[in-house]
Amino acid sequence: MEAIQAKKSRTEWGVRASNYALSTFNPIRSIVDGMKLTPHPDKPMIALSIGDPTVFGNLPVPEAAEDAIIKALKTRTYNGYGPSTGYEKARAAVAEYVSTPTTKVEARDVVLCSGCSGALDLCITVLANPGQNILMPRPGFSIYKTLAESLGVIVKTYDLLPEKSWEIDLDNLTELIDDHTAGIVVNNPSNPCGSVYSEEHLKDVLAIASKFKVPIIADEIYEHFVFDGFQYHSMASLTTEVPIVSCGGLTKRFLVPGWRMGWIVVYDRNNTLSEIRQGLTSLSQRILGPNTLVQAALPDILNNTPAEFFHDTVQYIQKNAALFYKRLCAVPGLKPVMPQGAMYMMVGIDMAGFPEYNTDVEFTEAMVTEQSVFCLPATCFQYPGYFRVVLTVPADKVDEACNRIEEFCKQHFTKSVNGTTEITGK
Amino acid sequence: MEAIQAKKSRTEWGVRASNYALSTFNPIRSIVDGMKLTPHPDKPMIALSIGDPTVFGNLPVPEAAEDAIIKALKTRTYNGYGPSTGYEKARAAVAEYVSTPTTKVEARDVVLCSGCSGALDLCITVLANPGQNILMPRPGFSIYKTLAESLGVIVKTYDLLPEKSWEIDLDNLTELIDDHTAGIVVNNPSNPCGSVYSEEHLKDVLAIASKFKVPIIADEIYEHFVFDGFQYHSMASLTTEVPIVSCGGLTKRFLVPGWRMGWIVVYDRNNTLSEIRQGLTSLSQRILGPNTLVQAALPDILNNTPAEFFHDTVQYIQKNAALFYKRLCAVPGLKPVMPQGAMYMMVGIDMAGFPEYNTDVEFTEAMVTEQSVFCLPATCFQYPGYFRVVLTVPADKVDEACNRIEEFCKQHFTKSVNGTTEITGK
Repeated sequence: MEAIQAKKSRTEWGVRASNYALSTFNPIRSIVDGMKLTPHPDKPMIALSIGDPTVFGNLPVPEAAEDAIIKALKTRTYNGYGPSTGYEKARAAVAEYVSTPTTKVEARDVVLCSGCSGALDLCITVLANPGQNILMPRPGFSIYKTLAESLGVIVKTYDLLPEKSWEIDLDNLTELIDDHTAGIVVNNPSNPCGSVYSEEHLKDVLAIASKFKVPIIADEIYEHFVFDGFQYHSMASLTTEVPIVSCGGLTKRFLVPGWRMGWIVVYDRNNTLSEIRQGLTSLSQRILGPNTLVQAALPDILNNTPAEFFHDTVQYIQKNAALFYKRLCAVPGLKPVMPQGAMYMMVGIDMAGFPEYNTDVEFTEAMVTEQSVFCLPATCFQYPGYFRVVLTVPADKVDEACNRIEEFCKQHFTKSVNGTTEITGK
Repeated sequence: MEAIQAKKSRTEWGVRASNYALSTFNPIRSIVDGMKLTPHPDKPMIALSIGDPTVFGNLPVPEAAEDAIIKALKTRTYNGYGPSTGYEKARAAVAEYVSTPTTKVEARDVVLCSGCSGALDLCITVLANPGQNILMPRPGFSIYKTLAESLGVIVKTYDLLPEKSWEIDLDNLTELIDDHTAGIVVNNPSNPCGSVYSEEHLKDVLAIASKFKVPIIADEIYEHFVFDGFQYHSMASLTTEVPIVSCGGLTKRFLVPGWRMGWIVVYDRNNTLSEIRQGLTSLSQRILGPNTLVQAALPDILNNTPAEFFHDTVQYIQKNAALFYKRLCAVPGLKPVMPQGAMYMMVGIDMAGFPEYNTDVEFTEAMVTEQSVFCLPATCFQYPGYFRVVLTVPADKVDEACNRIEEFCKQHFTKSVNGTTEITGK
């Protein structure tokens, strides 16, 4: 027996973590944990850093969602194990919710997951083997990288163009595709950019996916979260050919990130995703689906939340966006990029104008020390030279935050030699 | 640029699932899906197959748990993201709940997970690299194998001994340990066996772990689920040396498997698990913890559920166990093993006495066809020649199920040549 040969006892414990665990790495955590975040003692902290719409208490959960949970609880019939991909009724409700006139979805196309991060985890895991690569936006949400790299999947980032409202650099995207590309992550509307892509732009991206036969992972957790004058298009609604797995959930639109209700919608095209569909079902059996009370409540949550609820939320954020934009445009050394949706705004820093600070990390750190305002340095999104502002804050805090940011910049900005403001993103 | 070399377009889609997904494989599903389960048209089906205590409606959720969820919901403060390892208050409540006079646990030792399967997933993932092995019981719960093998971790099974109430074959366990052994899974009380190990037996297992310096993954989801005359000992309460990660949750004891509230308790010993602790925190960031409403309710659920609730549940199951045992002992060709806890009983089949059937799978399939009684063939637990009975069924169904099983066996049993009943498990 092979075991005999190795039958010597170890002399010390030394329990090592696996490579998988050691390489599961959240860049935001490591950057933020490395910052000295000591607010000014005389100024209460204003955190514009956390992408959680519930933290300020100004954006409450829809009543219909609360009622639906209580109703599900009271029936006493949703406490047992659900199917690992979710209750049929809940999946059917999601299918109806995401269907468009051109793209009908059925319950069998939906996999319920533990949050949208759980959905992204399954999608990346099912599509890519170690050594293959997945293309992701830069700037982009860090969890894609966290999930992929721990699996040994290579991350390649394609550029977004701030001067084009963060549209994808299509040439750059095309260049990056190779025989080992297992998928392209497209995040629309975008965190951290707040961009909302036009139909034309999405079709351009789909044309590239089609040409090289690479499936799309559409992170659409901010679906319908768009400001006046813009329109949301699901990627799947714009193609009948490109296979797409779309990730969504209750998290952002229904303002309940903690409920961990995410989903994957499989947009199969001519059975090109039949193996992926089966793979997702297998992977869902690892943790057996999300909380059944929320699953049971899902049809009511999706059907009974009034349109005004969404309208009011978006109006609130849009107003904040306009306010931040107007104020920060007038601040020396800053160059905000007006968002079109989601709940974030990226702000460029003319680093040459702030010679005291080498990086956006140092810049935002100093803003905490002196002004007790914390914006996330965009190094967290692999995009140095910018910071991200969260737009869900109460209106009175927006004003105060802008005052302090302005004061900070006025104190530290040194006009560039040639008199122009140069943003050093990328 | 490297990409140029591979810049030819693929000519067909053919989106393949990853090896990880393809090797995530639930043996129960594949065995059960392969069975012809056509109940007898004149007899209503009695499913003794599903390890979900809620399916019959006879074992309701504790009221304290329902109240706690509603209370958490009404505060409107637990809808946002929690820390990825769980709210501090919820972790502290679990720490208090699992602490024993000899082993004190703190909030920092607890990681909340999406169900106990989520907890097991994290423990196996954090401890083992591909190519290393983990030892697991046979018969044993299939998810260990599902989780490990998809990661490329090798599964080695050690034998449980039915003639010793399913104690671990210690010699066999010892033989299997080698330099590549990353952990030993011990499931106590056990699914599918219903065994509850004595203090002495657990100490024997710990002595082996200590000798070879192999950490323990203790699957203790059925903690305290023991019949009169037996006592539950957590593994961690019996050692100050062996590092243990223990998996538990609300699932079984509080009868809410669908709520997906599991936890890992890290029993570090002299900092031997510091890397594991860090690794678990990293891994928890992939899906960002379980549902926050259940997390917020956890202190109340653990503190306010009355002792009678647990007592009544165990009494109910114990009564069923005695009934099943007594009845099936009298059935020709069957040899039940009396359980000591949990909610299952294993029943040996004298396969030689049932020459019509080659396997326990064929045997249980025929019992569905003729008697509409479905017991899970123990091939699902890598233990052919037995079947598993779930003990949570309503009392009137126990009687009817036993009648039908008896009728089935009487019709098909052929006395062995030498007149003795021989059980061909293993």
